[in-house]
Amino acid sequence: MPSYTAPTKDMQFILHDVLKLSQGTTPGYADLDRDFTAAILEEAGKIASEVLAPLNPVGDTEGCRLENGVVYTPPGFKAAFEQMKENGWPGIDMPEDFGGQGMPYVLGTAVGEFFSAANQAFTMYQGLTHGAASTILAHGTKAQKETYLHKMVACDWTGTMNLTEPHCGTDLGLMRTKAEPQADGSYKITGQKIFISAGEHDMAENIIHLVLAKIPGGPEGIKGVSLFIVPKFLVNEDGSLGPRNGVSCGKIEEKMGIHGNATCVMNYDGATGYLLGEAHKGMRAMFTMMNEARLGVGMQGVAQAEIAFQNALAYAKDRLQGRDITGVKNPEGPADPLIVHPDIRRNLMEQKSFVEGGRAFLLWGATLIDAAHRSGDTDADGLISLMTPVIKGFLTDKGFDMTVQAQQVYGGHGYIEEWGMSQYARDARIAMIYEGANGVQALDLVGRKLAQDGGKHVMAFFDMVKSFCKSAAETDGMGEFVEPLKRASKDLQTAGMYFMQEGMKNPNAALSGSYDFMHLFGHVCLGLMWARMAEAALAALAAGTDDPDFHRTKLATARFYMARQLPMTATHLARIQSGAEPVMALDAANF
Amino acid sequence: MPSYTAPTKDMQFILHDVLKLSQGTTPGYADLDRDFTAAILEEAGKIASEVLAPLNPVGDTEGCRLENGVVYTPPGFKAAFEQMKENGWPGIDMPEDFGGQGMPYVLGTAVGEFFSAANQAFTMYQGLTHGAASTILAHGTKAQKETYLHKMVACDWTGTMNLTEPHCGTDLGLMRTKAEPQADGSYKITGQKIFISAGEHDMAENIIHLVLAKIPGGPEGIKGVSLFIVPKFLVNEDGSLGPRNGVSCGKIEEKMGIHGNATCVMNYDGATGYLLGEAHKGMRAMFTMMNEARLGVGMQGVAQAEIAFQNALAYAKDRLQGRDITGVKNPEGPADPLIVHPDIRRNLMEQKSFVEGGRAFLLWGATLIDAAHRSGDTDADGLISLMTPVIKGFLTDKGFDMTVQAQQVYGGHGYIEEWGMSQYARDARIAMIYEGANGVQALDLVGRKLAQDGGKHVMAFFDMVKSFCKSAAETDGMGEFVEPLKRASKDLQTAGMYFMQEGMKNPNAALSGSYDFMHLFGHVCLGLMWARMAEAALAALAAGTDDPDFHRTKLATARFYMARQLPMTATHLARIQSGAEPVMALDAANF
Repeated sequence: MPSYTAPTKDMQFILHDVLKLSQGTTPGYADLDRDFTAAILEEAGKIASEVLAPLNPVGDTEGCRLENGVVYTPPGFKAAFEQMKENGWPGIDMPEDFGGQGMPYVLGTAVGEFFSAANQAFTMYQGLTHGAASTILAHGTKAQKETYLHKMVACDWTGTMNLTEPHCGTDLGLMRTKAEPQADGSYKITGQKIFISAGEHDMAENIIHLVLAKIPGGPEGIKGVSLFIVPKFLVNEDGSLGPRNGVSCGKIEEKMGIHGNATCVMNYDGATGYLLGEAHKGMRAMFTMMNEARLGVGMQGVAQAEIAFQNALAYAKDRLQGRDITGVKNPEGPADPLIVHPDIRRNLMEQKSFVEGGRAFLLWGATLIDAAHRSGDTDADGLISLMTPVIKGFLTDKGFDMTVQAQQVYGGHGYIEEWGMSQYARDARIAMIYEGANGVQALDLVGRKLAQDGGKHVMAFFDMVKSFCKSAAETDGMGEFVEPLKRASKDLQTAGMYFMQEGMKNPNAALSGSYDFMHLFGHVCLGLMWARMAEAALAALAAGTDDPDFHRTKLATARFYMARQLPMTATHLARIQSGAEPVMALDAANF
Repeated sequence: MPSYTAPTKDMQFILHDVLKLSQGTTPGYADLDRDFTAAILEEAGKIASEVLAPLNPVGDTEGCRLENGVVYTPPGFKAAFEQMKENGWPGIDMPEDFGGQGMPYVLGTAVGEFFSAANQAFTMYQGLTHGAASTILAHGTKAQKETYLHKMVACDWTGTMNLTEPHCGTDLGLMRTKAEPQADGSYKITGQKIFISAGEHDMAENIIHLVLAKIPGGPEGIKGVSLFIVPKFLVNEDGSLGPRNGVSCGKIEEKMGIHGNATCVMNYDGATGYLLGEAHKGMRAMFTMMNEARLGVGMQGVAQAEIAFQNALAYAKDRLQGRDITGVKNPEGPADPLIVHPDIRRNLMEQKSFVEGGRAFLLWGATLIDAAHRSGDTDADGLISLMTPVIKGFLTDKGFDMTVQAQQVYGGHGYIEEWGMSQYARDARIAMIYEGANGVQALDLVGRKLAQDGGKHVMAFFDMVKSFCKSAAETDGMGEFVEPLKRASKDLQTAGMYFMQEGMKNPNAALSGSYDFMHLFGHVCLGLMWARMAEAALAALAAGTDDPDFHRTKLATARFYMARQLPMTATHLARIQSGAEPVMALDAANF
């Protein structure tokens, strides 16, 4: 049976030795000292491994069930959800005014990784609620916030995001769902939405749907889309639940994975809705929350890779098969453990260096979100806006790949559902698709984010890498990490220049290389993270850490990333520089 | 609903324009002219798309069922199996003496791709039978051949291969299954085998299990393993079925995919078995058939990529979403089809260039097997032996990746089982594992095959590439294909040299790079295939082909492969040259 142990030590290393949280100037960060975060992470890790992880295969096997309009979640989910609520986890980084604990987003991200690793399908119920509540927080009226947020922060009521329709996903301008204005200021919502995660279930008293729809007579296309609050049960003035609204679940989808989460077809049949934010500005309201939501999905990539890696590692140490080619390592046993074999190590090191580098990247991104939201730091806001598609696209692509590699360590057992490795791969697969498929992330990065504010943010990124390299190079022992990072960063700059020069003449020259650019950027970011972790490890060793093995392992893993993963930037650059012609040459009919 | 159309035109191009089959000297090739293979491919394609493909989702959804020791295959499988038998497909490349059609293996591979693409789980029943029959053909006594082969060639009786036990997969020396000699010359087989594909089912009168077991008192480890024929029903002297043997299916595994194939736990409880080949030489007997079996698995990688690509392409042409950035392409519609977008094309071109290049690689490999078996060509035998791990490992890794990319074209719909794209990825996943996990293929390549016969075969490969480049460079228009191939081949040679030099000092220096070497080799082979296809396309265009679009498309796809895929060789080389240290640095305890 698979198991999960929260990587609290690694998380502490990143939060304190690398990001030096409590020395930060972001409001709330001074409280995040080592002991405080240790206590929080310890508690979160406990519930993740003891409560959520055992339910993960249950959710996969049992799935959700729709009967007479009611969706039943898998056995045990409801009790676990109650426990999460009682312990206040859903509101950890929500405002105290609405019952949250008001902690920084970076801490929510850290514990969120644990929950998501232990049980992605389960954690989505509160994740979606978080996203919906954040949207109401940012765009709702005072009355709307009062009506919904107390309950949503506590997860007594959960939330959803309704964007996709059968004929439109990425291109939401094609949307058909209608919102007809009523005399009392409300709207009647009519239409069908699909792929609605947590759209209907039995774990909350009420479900607050956020629904994109068009007000008749508004602008064509995406500029005519508005956002509405559509509660499953209407809410009376005193806050009690009123009559059932005209919204229902028509179907639960059969999916490749995340079976524990109900992915619903939602039918709106003249349902009462309330405008959230301005009319026709629905996309803007949705996008306010996109950086957070996409970072959350990137986190799922790392989280699934982490639990898959943990189990693959345990199996590699336990399973006896073959002998070490350089000499027997387990003479008492009939064979040596798998981990003696170089190719098994190659595989495990790829997983390990990805997971730890990706985790650092995510948490760094979360500190930028905190700086933007809590300190109004517009530079941080610009930088995280630039890097959001990289976090989402690169970390979910690689996260999925790593679950597949972890599965491979098990040989045939990896393919058998009983061992649990298949579920990690099947669950991780969705993260490459939802919240904007990864090809759309690449398009956002190259088509929009690179040139945003005159290219200011990407220049800031390069300056940051440059000044890091300059200062780090002065530390003894950092040369071996700084040099490959410099080379990789140069590849990224060269690719950026290519886009600027060629993209002016032909946008396809840039867009044909967008996916490679997203991955190139991701490698540079993980290279930067590994260099920063190496720097922190060297500092700890110099200061006489009481855990030298831990810090030496960081250095060895950093070396692996530099030697074995970062060279990928050269190939991405070569692909990019081949331009549009190889990609666009064929007529559609000749494919 | 997904669909499948057999790529007969592409297959004909490879067989005749590239491989020039009927001009070959291998016995049987002279008969394989264009019209003859066209007729065969047409018929095979018809049954694949009309009979097997519609059953593919049925097999996935319904799976197999074990009731009171009887395994029921999914609805429709049995009738389709009968139809395949009636049309003689299972024995197409088996000897006429035993009721086969005696055609070359290359033709069996060509039609096998169609069947496997249309329904991998179904096709495995006859694939396993083919493997078992081939083993009896190579190692059986005259009486054994007479007793089993007529029925097996017809698929009236099916076959299995029993290697794995719960505690041993790759390391078969740990095997516990026992074979105790009986007075009548037979053996009593006792033990448990797992992951036995087609181990029990309702489509054949009898099942002939080939079982590896140890005769007590024999040599330790892998040298004490023998191979046995263990029929489900014992066979009387007159060929009629006798009593049920002591072998039974204890369980069907729940797997990630290929649900239509029964993966069985097989319990041998003093079952009567007959030695096949020499005692204690069981592994040698098994390995005789390995090149074929592994090529067959590599084919599954290409086949699943093909059907996934076909459906992704159709969806990309059909689904309207967004507008072409260079100008509206579908002004009458609400949006342009997905295929106008550069990143969708990048994705589709990666699929297309892999599938067509991989198909050529496979068929070329099949001609080498024919040359080895039919002409006793030892050079061909050495070359295919070298390339077998590349065919198996590279084509199944990439094949799976391509099914994942095809799924991605569908966005959210790709994750919903109803659309069928998930099944291709789930089914393709197993090919990376069975017949030797891909890490073991890499080990076989670098640890064994490279140095085989003094490195003669890899030198022959390099000479072949070199002389191809030299002669092709004389053709107008070939320069753009020859140059990248030369560079890639040089990377491969450099990697080989590195292994020779460093591997002498430290075997881990070579083995740490084995996986990258396997992929590097695969890219060079596909580069060679694309250069050969380009040469054939240029020749056809020069000769005034009546289908210039087809041949120009080959040139454009070859250009894509050279520009966008082949540069990967540089990264593989860089990883290899970083040596063992980054991979092996950590103690197991510090992971």
